Amino acid sequence: MTQPLTLTLSCPDRRGIVAKVSAFLFERGCNILDAQQYDDPETGAFFMRVVFAPDGQDADALRAQFMAIADELAMRWTLRDPSQRYRVMILTSKSDHCLADLIYRWRIGELAMDISAVVSNHPEQTYPAIDFTGIDFHHLPVARDTKLEQEAALWALIQSTGTDIVVLARYMQVLSDGLAAKLEGRCINIHHSFLPGFKGARPYHQAHVRGVKLIGATAHYVTGDLDEGPIIEQDVERISHRDSPDDLVRKGRDIERRVLARALRWRLEDRVLLNGRKTVVFTD
Amino acid sequence: MTQPLTLTLSCPDRRGIVAKVSAFLFERGCNILDAQQYDDPETGAFFMRVVFAPDGQDADALRAQFMAIADELAMRWTLRDPSQRYRVMILTSKSDHCLADLIYRWRIGELAMDISAVVSNHPEQTYPAIDFTGIDFHHLPVARDTKLEQEAALWALIQSTGTDIVVLARYMQVLSDGLAAKLEGRCINIHHSFLPGFKGARPYHQAHVRGVKLIGATAHYVTGDLDEGPIIEQDVERISHRDSPDDLVRKGRDIERRVLARALRWRLEDRVLLNGRKTVVFTD
Amino acid sequence: MTQPLTLTLSCPDRRGIVAKVSAFLFERGCNILDAQQYDDPETGAFFMRVVFAPDGQDADALRAQFMAIADELAMRWTLRDPSQRYRVMILTSKSDHCLADLIYRWRIGELAMDISAVVSNHPEQTYPAIDFTGIDFHHLPVARDTKLEQEAALWALIQSTGTDIVVLARYMQVLSDGLAAKLEGRCINIHHSFLPGFKGARPYHQAHVRGVKLIGATAHYVTGDLDEGPIIEQDVERISHRDSPDDLVRKGRDIERRVLARALRWRLEDRVLLNGRKTVVFTD
Amino acid sequence: MTQPLTLTLSCPDRRGIVAKVSAFLFERGCNILDAQQYDDPETGAFFMRVVFAPDGQDADALRAQFMAIADELAMRWTLRDPSQRYRVMILTSKSDHCLADLIYRWRIGELAMDISAVVSNHPEQTYPAIDFTGIDFHHLPVARDTKLEQEAALWALIQSTGTDIVVLARYMQVLSDGLAAKLEGRCINIHHSFLPGFKGARPYHQAHVRGVKLIGATAHYVTGDLDEGPIIEQDVERISHRDSPDDLVRKGRDIERRVLARALRWRLEDRVLLNGRKTVVFTD
Repeated sequence: MTQPLTLTLSCPDRRGIVAKVSAFLFERGCNILDAQQYDDPETGAFFMRVVFAPDGQDADALRAQFMAIADELAMRWTLRDPSQRYRVMILTSKSDHCLADLIYRWRIGELAMDISAVVSNHPEQTYPAIDFTGIDFHHLPVARDTKLEQEAALWALIQSTGTDIVVLARYMQVLSDGLAAKLEGRCINIHHSFLPGFKGARPYHQAHVRGVKLIGATAHYVTGDLDEGPIIEQDVERISHRDSPDDLVRKGRDIERRVLARALRWRLEDRVLLNGRKTVVFTD
Repeated sequence: MTQPLTLTLSCPDRRGIVAKVSAFLFERGCNILDAQQYDDPETGAFFMRVVFAPDGQDADALRAQFMAIADELAMRWTLRDPSQRYRVMILTSKSDHCLADLIYRWRIGELAMDISAVVSNHPEQTYPAIDFTGIDFHHLPVARDTKLEQEAALWALIQSTGTDIVVLARYMQVLSDGLAAKLEGRCINIHHSFLPGFKGARPYHQAHVRGVKLIGATAHYVTGDLDEGPIIEQDVERISHRDSPDDLVRKGRDIERRVLARALRWRLEDRVLLNGRKTVVFTD
Repeated sequence: MTQPLTLTLSCPDRRGIVAKVSAFLFERGCNILDAQQYDDPETGAFFMRVVFAPDGQDADALRAQFMAIADELAMRWTLRDPSQRYRVMILTSKSDHCLADLIYRWRIGELAMDISAVVSNHPEQTYPAIDFTGIDFHHLPVARDTKLEQEAALWALIQSTGTDIVVLARYMQVLSDGLAAKLEGRCINIHHSFLPGFKGARPYHQAHVRGVKLIGATAHYVTGDLDEGPIIEQDVERISHRDSPDDLVRKGRDIERRVLARALRWRLEDRVLLNGRKTVVFTD
Repeated sequence: MTQPLTLTLSCPDRRGIVAKVSAFLFERGCNILDAQQYDDPETGAFFMRVVFAPDGQDADALRAQFMAIADELAMRWTLRDPSQRYRVMILTSKSDHCLADLIYRWRIGELAMDISAVVSNHPEQTYPAIDFTGIDFHHLPVARDTKLEQEAALWALIQSTGTDIVVLARYMQVLSDGLAAKLEGRCINIHHSFLPGFKGARPYHQAHVRGVKLIGATAHYVTGDLDEGPIIEQDVERISHRDSPDDLVRKGRDIERRVLARALRWRLEDRVLLNGRKTVVFTD
């Protein structure tokens, strides 16, 4: 039996989109296994994700045939064979809790991806707790006056490794607007979040001073504005007055790694669609 | 502009269901606003909920036309105009936290339903904290040897009031198998839940003795087996060793009322479909 | 048997505070039933809450005797008989979900307080869903040029009714700095919270535009800066792209009422101690 | 400056315990940094945890002096220097998500313990994703007729390695009643939990068949009855009808590892006191 394929699309809403898409699949003997739609009443945009059994046809052939419908309806779309794994590059800095977690989930088969590379602005020996067997590690150091060159090297590596998705796993360098634009919709960052929010340095310390009772983390697509891209996932944990700033950092690690892993898994399964400044996430 | 209509259906899965349904709507000028599907790989059953703008047609006419497709695909289905509100009967006993909460949500327009009656096995003066203005209150007392008669009166009332949905809002009488069967898929109960579960009397006290760290509540459809019907919604709250059995009861009230309100709202919006011993809930 | 009493205190930390306090109680035959302490390593302040069986002595007598220790250690302290209920004034505006919830919890005995008055800047008929039997309702309208007079009337009412605690249950008027200062540590407000936070009008709409995945609420003491006083409690709920701004408002109501009720209950039980810009909450 | 020490105690409740303990510390110049007490109204047992600055005295000396009070009040007690790390043995079987997580947290300093050994009934090569550098790995295979011998070897290893605490990190062998008794209060297990609970094999599959909306995990002390010992910590995650049994297993891994890590950290910090069939957990 052939593996299911995944179709995602977004386009201006009009009558008959579902009818056209489902007729296209039905006429080719495909069986819809899962489908979710969403019609944004504010932007007038339509979003759809369909998983279907392709009845022996391959993704390339169907893609060629679907082009006509996609053009007619002005779709932004993908039709993918999930067995063709995304190539994911993980960027990190000193804190390695997200990196270690992603690598573990990848090793046990929970994240269906290929790791194209791990890139850090710190050398490999920074991570004694991590086993990089089978993973290409790249040290791309950066200083104030080499930021441009480092980013050029990073972009060259993204291209040469055929990287589809970039994950900023506590990577403490801000991407330039230019690089962020090149990676639109395929670069995911994780950062702490609080109610209320805090700007500036040492956010967990600020949260402690303010006496918040919940701390959280947000995974989002990267745009020029580092912490303001379209949100993919968020979660929180309860804290109390007994928690020191160090306790907040520790609890923050737990939230950050599970929020990032969830966001990445949804992206790998083509569940995250861009909707202007926000996302449509067809969760499982 | 005409109000959106809601179509729900379930049937044995086969190719082309979505194509047929969406073509039916497209040919009649209807625009799909929201749709969710689910294909149960285990039972081979297909589930769908579609909200669409009917382009001036009314629900009765579309229903008559849809019959042919529904018969062909052996569907269990509904096509409703949500502005035709469900008539909901609320049954309760002494504890009135769920009753008070449902009435409040109804009064502020959060639960779009008509209350066909409130029925209790206790008299109206049991509830000094509740304002029954505009609500028919029925006292149907029950004793060991009048259970049959009371249930007959209850069933007569359900029929005479045109009740669509029955909510057991802390109603402490077990429905007979016969009545439960008559109300299949339209009678919702709320009860406490724990990890691990407890059987028998004074469950919060048992949970306290066992030292659980979470307590919860489950809203489910009623079947012959009181607390074992298809689950619609569940939630929990954290407790500690400092919580007395009374504290558990108090926290339990909060969970019970919000879980029941959520489950009822989903049911009123035709989001809850029966799937054998469980449910498919197309949440918002 | 005499009812337990509650002692709360905060003072600069030094050796022997617990020894002195517990010796004081032991020498008078009192038995400690529950005690929590906290020593803030940053401010050097010490906090303690003790519940004890007074062995027949009354609160007044013990209070007089405790004065010496309290003075010696420069304590801010209270020694209360919980059966002497706090008198609570509830202020509200158009949205009555928090008001209705607090009144219900009071009626069933969950909130051990006396309601000194309900005050609104809207007339009583604004609240058809609420039964004010046994509650003094005061309509104190306010216009731009009568703000001063309205607040003077409010303060007079607080004094004449012997109000201990003021709850802003969706009261949409900002208290003046002067009134906020007079109510330090005894005026609780509830407001929505988001990650990230939003300033300005229509916050739920802003959160929707931003595509957040969690919405929350914060209960805090009122200070001059309306939404920035010491936080007492926070909670969140999950939302998705399907939630409209109206859905956010609806879900927000649920969070707001349960966070406010929790914060008020803790305050009534003397569990909330001020610690500069934040609080120490000795939760149960 | 000397490091803080931790005193924990439980005893039958009577007047003056806190006074005696705090006077003991005060007379020796010790400063209480954190203290929590709990008086169980049902069992009449008193529980206390005190962290204090010992003013240059060492734990051994204070322990010798405290003995008199402890005897007088019939205490079960510990007085520890947290810089003397507990020696922890981790037992595991095929699923290594909890093992990997504990090792990672240990490597980054989040779990302040020494790992005395990792023991599995499977060989080391079962865990290619884990780096055992600096950890003693023991393969203790077990077959139906060698269970007794394997457990004897396990007990010998616990003794020879000076193990204080044993963690069953998805160890799929049931300890004998004899071994469980020897490890009372120092052996922690993790297992899945559901509302309602399920007995028997393939629990996640059962939960799927039942259509539950929440799945959870419980960390508890091991007693003769494998999954029924005193509960230390529990947590849950939300699932939906879209989740397959495999999805439940995946989400279960996340809950299991964070619940186990929390429970172990609390145990390492002497926050978990036995109270008959349940625990008192003085959380941070």
